[in-house]
Amino acid sequence: MKILAIDTSGLVASVAILDGDSILSEYMVNYKKTHSETLMPMIAEIIRMTETDKASFDAIAIAGGPGSFTGLRIGSATAKGIAQMYDLPIISVPTVDALAYNIWATDSLVVPIMDARRNQTYTGIYEYSEDGEMRVLMEQCAISVEELVEKLNSMDRSVIFLGDGVVRFKELIDETLKVAHKYAPAHHSRQRAGAVAVLGAKYYEQGKYTTAEEHEPEYLRKSQAEREREERNA
Amino acid sequence: MKILAIDTSGLVASVAILDGDSILSEYMVNYKKTHSETLMPMIAEIIRMTETDKASFDAIAIAGGPGSFTGLRIGSATAKGIAQMYDLPIISVPTVDALAYNIWATDSLVVPIMDARRNQTYTGIYEYSEDGEMRVLMEQCAISVEELVEKLNSMDRSVIFLGDGVVRFKELIDETLKVAHKYAPAHHSRQRAGAVAVLGAKYYEQGKYTTAEEHEPEYLRKSQAEREREERNA
Repeated sequence: MKILAIDTSGLVASVAILDGDSILSEYMVNYKKTHSETLMPMIAEIIRMTETDKASFDAIAIAGGPGSFTGLRIGSATAKGIAQMYDLPIISVPTVDALAYNIWATDSLVVPIMDARRNQTYTGIYEYSEDGEMRVLMEQCAISVEELVEKLNSMDRSVIFLGDGVVRFKELIDETLKVAHKYAPAHHSRQRAGAVAVLGAKYYEQGKYTTAEEHEPEYLRKSQAEREREERNA
Repeated sequence: MKILAIDTSGLVASVAILDGDSILSEYMVNYKKTHSETLMPMIAEIIRMTETDKASFDAIAIAGGPGSFTGLRIGSATAKGIAQMYDLPIISVPTVDALAYNIWATDSLVVPIMDARRNQTYTGIYEYSEDGEMRVLMEQCAISVEELVEKLNSMDRSVIFLGDGVVRFKELIDETLKVAHKYAPAHHSRQRAGAVAVLGAKYYEQGKYTTAEEHEPEYLRKSQAEREREERNA
C-alpha cells in the first residue's frame, strides 16, 4: 500500500511517501517558516520527484497530536483536503508514539519530551520487545517534567530522551533524574514523517483509521483561546 | 558550525543541512532516477527552503564510500565542485559507519549490509557504548555474506541488520545465522544524510577532513572496467 505521511506537530514540517516496505521519499524542514508556507510545497516536491501518481495513495497518515495547535490544525486541514479529494482514509498516529519510533530496538526506555509550554511536556514512556515491537508503558499525555522524572525514578531503568523539549528541560532532568540517561543525537531528535508512515501502516492493518470527515486532531489540552474564554465566563 | 551533507552511495539520494546541534533540513529520495538528475536540485531545494546563505557553510560531509561507483562519483564531483567554489573542507564519512548510525544506542550489534554485487556485501560491525558512542568492531569491507554470518555466529550477540542488502540476503541469513537477529523498519533502513552530517561534525572536531582537491571516494574494490582491463592485460 502507498501512504502519504505528514507531521506538523512541532516546529518541524516533515512529509514522506511509504510504498510497501520502502520509504520512497522523506523531507523534513526545521525552520522558522510557518507550516502553511511549507507543507503543501513540500508534499508537491516529493510527489514530483518520485513521479508519484496523486491518485495512487491508499491512505494519509498524520501525526494526530498533541503538539502545536496551529501546526496540528494546518496538518489536519491539509490531510482532510487531500483525503476528501481522493476519497482516502486518514490514519491518526499519536505524535509522541511516532517520535519515540525514531529510536528503535534499544534496551533503554524511550521518552520523547515536547515543550508544551505552561511548564508542561507532552511525553510518554516506551520500550521495545525482543522482536523490535514498540510497547507503550505510559500513554502520551501533558504533565510536568517533575512528575515525569518522579515516574522514571520509580521505574529504575536507563532512559533515552529526544524531542524539542530537551533544550528546555535538560538542566532540570540532569539535576533531578537519578537513573542513567542520555539524549538522542540531532538526526534522531525531531519529528519524522517516515516514522509516522511506518507506524501508520501498522495501524491501518489493525483497522485503526477514520474517514476524512471524522478526523480531528488530538490536542490533549484546551487551547489558550478556550481557556481564556472559560476564565472570562467563570 | 554549518555542514552540508550528501549521501549518494546507494540507490537513495539524501542531503541534509546540520546547523550546530540541529538538522535544519533533510531530504531523501529513493527512486529510479539517477543521482545526476536528483542531487543538485535536492541541494538547491533545501538551501532555498531554509533560506540558507550558500556562503555560510563551514564544510561538506559526504558518504565517502563504499557504494555504487557511479553514485559515489556523482556525489564526490558535486561535493568537490561546491567545496572548491566556496573554499570548504570535505569530510569523508565511511558509508557503512553512517548507515550503522541510523540505529542508535541499542544493545545489539548493528550490521549494515549493502548489496555489493558479485555475491559480496559492503558491511561492518558496530556496537554502542553505555553513553551512546558508536564503536567500530569490524571496519567496513567487502566480504561474502557467508563470511559475515560465520563472524557473527562466533560473536554470539544479537544482531540488527539494515540496508539495501537485506532484500537480497535475508533468506540466506535466516537460514545460516544462529544468533537472534532482526531487520530495521523502513524508516531506519536506508542511507540518511542526517547521519552523515552528525558523524561528519564529530570527524571535523577530530581534524579528519581534507581539501576538495585531496578528496577521493573510497571504493574498497576495483570497478568492473578496471577489473576487465586487468584481465585483458593479464
